[in-house]
Amino acid sequence: MRARCSVFIATSLDGFIAREDGRIDWLEHYNGLLPAGEDCGYGTFMAAVDVLVMGRHTFEQVLSFDAWPYGDKPVIVLGSQPPAIPPALAATVSASRETPRELVERLSAAGMRRLYIDGGLTIQGFLRDGLIDEMTITVIPLLLGAGRPLFGKLTGEIRLELLSSRSYDCGFVQNHYRVSRTATA
Amino acid sequence: MRARCSVFIATSLDGFIAREDGRIDWLEHYNGLLPAGEDCGYGTFMAAVDVLVMGRHTFEQVLSFDAWPYGDKPVIVLGSQPPAIPPALAATVSASRETPRELVERLSAAGMRRLYIDGGLTIQGFLRDGLIDEMTITVIPLLLGAGRPLFGKLTGEIRLELLSSRSYDCGFVQNHYRVSRTATA
Repeated sequence: MRARCSVFIATSLDGFIAREDGRIDWLEHYNGLLPAGEDCGYGTFMAAVDVLVMGRHTFEQVLSFDAWPYGDKPVIVLGSQPPAIPPALAATVSASRETPRELVERLSAAGMRRLYIDGGLTIQGFLRDGLIDEMTITVIPLLLGAGRPLFGKLTGEIRLELLSSRSYDCGFVQNHYRVSRTATA
Repeated sequence: MRARCSVFIATSLDGFIAREDGRIDWLEHYNGLLPAGEDCGYGTFMAAVDVLVMGRHTFEQVLSFDAWPYGDKPVIVLGSQPPAIPPALAATVSASRETPRELVERLSAAGMRRLYIDGGLTIQGFLRDGLIDEMTITVIPLLLGAGRPLFGKLTGEIRLELLSSRSYDCGFVQNHYRVSRTATA
């Protein structure tokens, strides 16, 4: 059985996941508006994830945080240019030049059941290859006007099914979609 | 008092309001999934609108429909290239080369209280000039992969306040935002 590939991400209303230079200060500001203990379902989602898959940009962004947020969860950094992995993370972080399909097949064969696909370009690549199964997208009430977009060009339309939608007092709207017909590469 | 400038529009999940060639067949398909009589609040919104403002592209798109949808409602087509206005519409449709601000000031002075700002480039121009007061955006559960975007570059961030959010059985999510701090041009 192929591992399920999930996206869990926040975007500005105009569809950006980071500023052009990669900063997410705006998102951190808005997350600070949430009541204490409210994580918009992130903890529950992460608890069900076997492996994180991200691109080098996202990995380097996460490395810049005060603390490594993923604990012992395996992380695979995908891309043609291998990242510098700090020794302290060598036990859980690995790099791979596999295609999305090769990676998903290998991890599925190894018994992984749910992959968390993160980062704009990585998500776009998995979408183009028809490998994303579900997306939870939290829309922040802000127009950035420029930045790194969540979505990119596709070789065909992708239809989704809305599984749930909820809003938060601070103005977030979180939508959970199942990909009902994936584009073929 | 300045007339309120409102947006009421549908986008794909990846933020497009039309295909690259302007077609909205995908939106018409999805609108066909709504129960009979369900217009997602459009009728109520339109009843409160004094004047429609749109760009030439949107006007030409609307002209291509089977019937003119705006009845006797005044329509102003904004832009440097004046559109060809069919004689049958000459009583309600006019063209203008005013800037967004000039137009809003003139219409406000004439007693207009609510303007419906439509079309991607027109909305973007009004946003950049800090003139949009509220936006109702209905997100269709579809990734188009390419098209004409609702949003464009801004000279500064724009913060919004979520006034309401609701979802429909067919997978639409409609969010109503108030612009709480507008960009300055």
